[in-house]
Amino acid sequence: MPDANPPQEAPRGMAMINAFDPSRATGLSARERAMVERRQRLLGPAYRLFYEHPVHAVRGEGAWLFDAEGNRYLDCYNNVASMGHAHPRVVEAIARQASLLNTHTRYLHETVLDYAEALLATFPASLGHVMFTCTGSEANDLALRIARAHTGGEGIVVTSLAYHGVTASLAELSPSLGEGVPLGRHVATVAPPDAYRGGAGMPARFAADIAAAFAGLARHGIRPCALLVDTMFTSDGVFPDPAGFLAGAAEAARAAGALFIADEVQPGFGRTGAMWGFQRHGVEPDIVTMGKPMGNGHPVAGLAIRPELLERFGGTVRYFNTFGGNPVSAAAGLAVLEVLREEGLAENAAAIGAHLAAGLRALAERHPIIGDVRGAGLSIGCELVSDRATKEPATAETARVVNALRNRRVLISASGPGANILKIRPPLCLSCEQAELFLETLDAVLREA
Amino acid sequence: MPDANPPQEAPRGMAMINAFDPSRATGLSARERAMVERRQRLLGPAYRLFYEHPVHAVRGEGAWLFDAEGNRYLDCYNNVASMGHAHPRVVEAIARQASLLNTHTRYLHETVLDYAEALLATFPASLGHVMFTCTGSEANDLALRIARAHTGGEGIVVTSLAYHGVTASLAELSPSLGEGVPLGRHVATVAPPDAYRGGAGMPARFAADIAAAFAGLARHGIRPCALLVDTMFTSDGVFPDPAGFLAGAAEAARAAGALFIADEVQPGFGRTGAMWGFQRHGVEPDIVTMGKPMGNGHPVAGLAIRPELLERFGGTVRYFNTFGGNPVSAAAGLAVLEVLREEGLAENAAAIGAHLAAGLRALAERHPIIGDVRGAGLSIGCELVSDRATKEPATAETARVVNALRNRRVLISASGPGANILKIRPPLCLSCEQAELFLETLDAVLREA
Repeated sequence: MPDANPPQEAPRGMAMINAFDPSRATGLSARERAMVERRQRLLGPAYRLFYEHPVHAVRGEGAWLFDAEGNRYLDCYNNVASMGHAHPRVVEAIARQASLLNTHTRYLHETVLDYAEALLATFPASLGHVMFTCTGSEANDLALRIARAHTGGEGIVVTSLAYHGVTASLAELSPSLGEGVPLGRHVATVAPPDAYRGGAGMPARFAADIAAAFAGLARHGIRPCALLVDTMFTSDGVFPDPAGFLAGAAEAARAAGALFIADEVQPGFGRTGAMWGFQRHGVEPDIVTMGKPMGNGHPVAGLAIRPELLERFGGTVRYFNTFGGNPVSAAAGLAVLEVLREEGLAENAAAIGAHLAAGLRALAERHPIIGDVRGAGLSIGCELVSDRATKEPATAETARVVNALRNRRVLISASGPGANILKIRPPLCLSCEQAELFLETLDAVLREA
Repeated sequence: MPDANPPQEAPRGMAMINAFDPSRATGLSARERAMVERRQRLLGPAYRLFYEHPVHAVRGEGAWLFDAEGNRYLDCYNNVASMGHAHPRVVEAIARQASLLNTHTRYLHETVLDYAEALLATFPASLGHVMFTCTGSEANDLALRIARAHTGGEGIVVTSLAYHGVTASLAELSPSLGEGVPLGRHVATVAPPDAYRGGAGMPARFAADIAAAFAGLARHGIRPCALLVDTMFTSDGVFPDPAGFLAGAAEAARAAGALFIADEVQPGFGRTGAMWGFQRHGVEPDIVTMGKPMGNGHPVAGLAIRPELLERFGGTVRYFNTFGGNPVSAAAGLAVLEVLREEGLAENAAAIGAHLAAGLRALAERHPIIGDVRGAGLSIGCELVSDRATKEPATAETARVVNALRNRRVLISASGPGANILKIRPPLCLSCEQAELFLETLDAVLREA
């Protein structure tokens, strides 16, 4: 994958949205400036910070983050610490198991089996095996290796601003990374299922686009491998509705001879108000990939799969991941499942998410810049437009809103091709009062704008 | 990478060496049998256990592992828990930071900077930036993405039984995974620098082979990207001598226009008696990749790089790894560096490694099956042959020795194309008494054989 493109002038991808730019920095203390310079010197040019005034977080609790001066921030963006920052149950599970043993899966250990069993119980019975990795990237990379071994094909269909990971094989099918990262020749993109801009014909068109994309690949001699989608289309701009449309998309993929891989790295583990994002669509994926909140920050990821799809890969290729499925990761993962169930966090995400979405729709009555509010549970997209009739993306205003929220200590970011869709995804333990604080702060920021 | 090959009948790779085979299982308790069956049912066919009688480890301390019945095993194989199993300093660092905050690198945090600084201080000054991932696979995958962006080439040269990771792009340049995983068209292999079988002309031939491999790629229109080698050639069979030969190899790669990437995932962090495996060769790599012992079991990995090589990638591609460089991983990594220094573990590896190698050479005087003993520090290869003159690999005997050692509660494995090279790599805290126990047990096993 040689990178022969010039540096991108107008980044279209999520990687640059809301990034700190030293030339537009505001409000940094001398200490923060020194940290920014030290970062640049040590970590180099590939790293990016959020916000015109980056946040120096030193402690977290629930949905709160605290900076070095003790200021409190409402985290409405971090989709990793979904059980709440530094959740004591998860921390204790990690510390307890780490003090006993942390080793690989070539020895027998009960914890990885207990975890695999608990995890598989959350899936349809057709998904009978689970495999463990450390990151969502590794999970998607492995899913595609398995899909290639099973289908004998290479053709992958993704949405036009998808993000599926940072390994070489995933970067070339993650158009959200921008034009600096060319797509592979075996990759075709389809427009996301955008009910706001795509209109009423959207769900049917999404399935038809997928069928056409596989047909297009076939005309280039590229046989079908998989349809790979984030079941909430998070990077594309959050597209959950109408519930059910993914069933038709999966059907189109299977009719073409491809597998349907549900990337639940962002929607999974209760965020949408259900355990998995695909559930609201009434579809059973062939492979489900998982990551981010799976260990509430501990590097745990993996996939669930229909056993018959794993036969060829398991027999001829095999897989070993040094840290994947180790007892500490499994203990962290088990603790997350327990917290999720005992604290009713998916239910809370559904209730608070509905409250938040209703509050945003109420704000839309006073603020014409809000063009659309959509979401499921605590995965919410709020599209800002400069004109509701033309739906022109309010790109610059969105950047100002995100930075103004940060300056009032409420943390979110934005996504979408116009970088105009507020991405709101707080920890699942968000309280009603915290949701109100978010809404009041956004209201104040929009009134000022 | 469609997998069109039949299942391999005679696996040549490390992945099958020493794997548990239910049809040859011996000594399993009812509980262990139940666990094996449960694993198969939950995790599926891609996972492998070690030994004819798998080990059920529940606790670790220093170089000891303990099974569920309280039996003690001497771990002479695990190259992850290099600071000793469940080292309290590392466990405490993880628990303390996890109880405060575990978040990503898009906020400012001191710990990742402190860690980056401490890590870079262990390298030549030419390696000025460090980047963090979660696994050695992710580190090698990223190194190759950066190398491709910098060179504009794709051609990779590796040794003939190399292992560099399990992402799609690394599996296709890891011939040790066996014939079920075809090599990429842009990958050329060279014979490892085997002083035992390769003879006195080896080091010069290794450099010449590398030059020829890049020339061969060029004849297929594939431009040079990188020479990627484990600096101890661990999977090929452990080839450390004569110290210095890697300098010539790096020179050959650079003369061809390729970068020299040192894979220190296995040799790094004191194992060879020095901090890095490349140091004994007096060479400065362009990129160094790290993993396994970096967090003593916690999923921490990364790379160090010459800043000018990162300019293009950093500017046009960028990189974000959700868990990479998080404060908990950085705290774990910092604790490992402190333990390594304060406990003098590299020095201990040099001293005990020399003692162990001398003991193996003394055993060779009584046991003609020992054909060669080689190593640096606590990375030791001991080659078993059925005839010292022909150097015929004692493949079946090696499997018996490894399993007999396990039955006497000493854990090692084997590698090499003939699966006849005992791979000995205990935690770096191995004591003289533990080294003696290893030697006495091996002596007893060889006497019985």
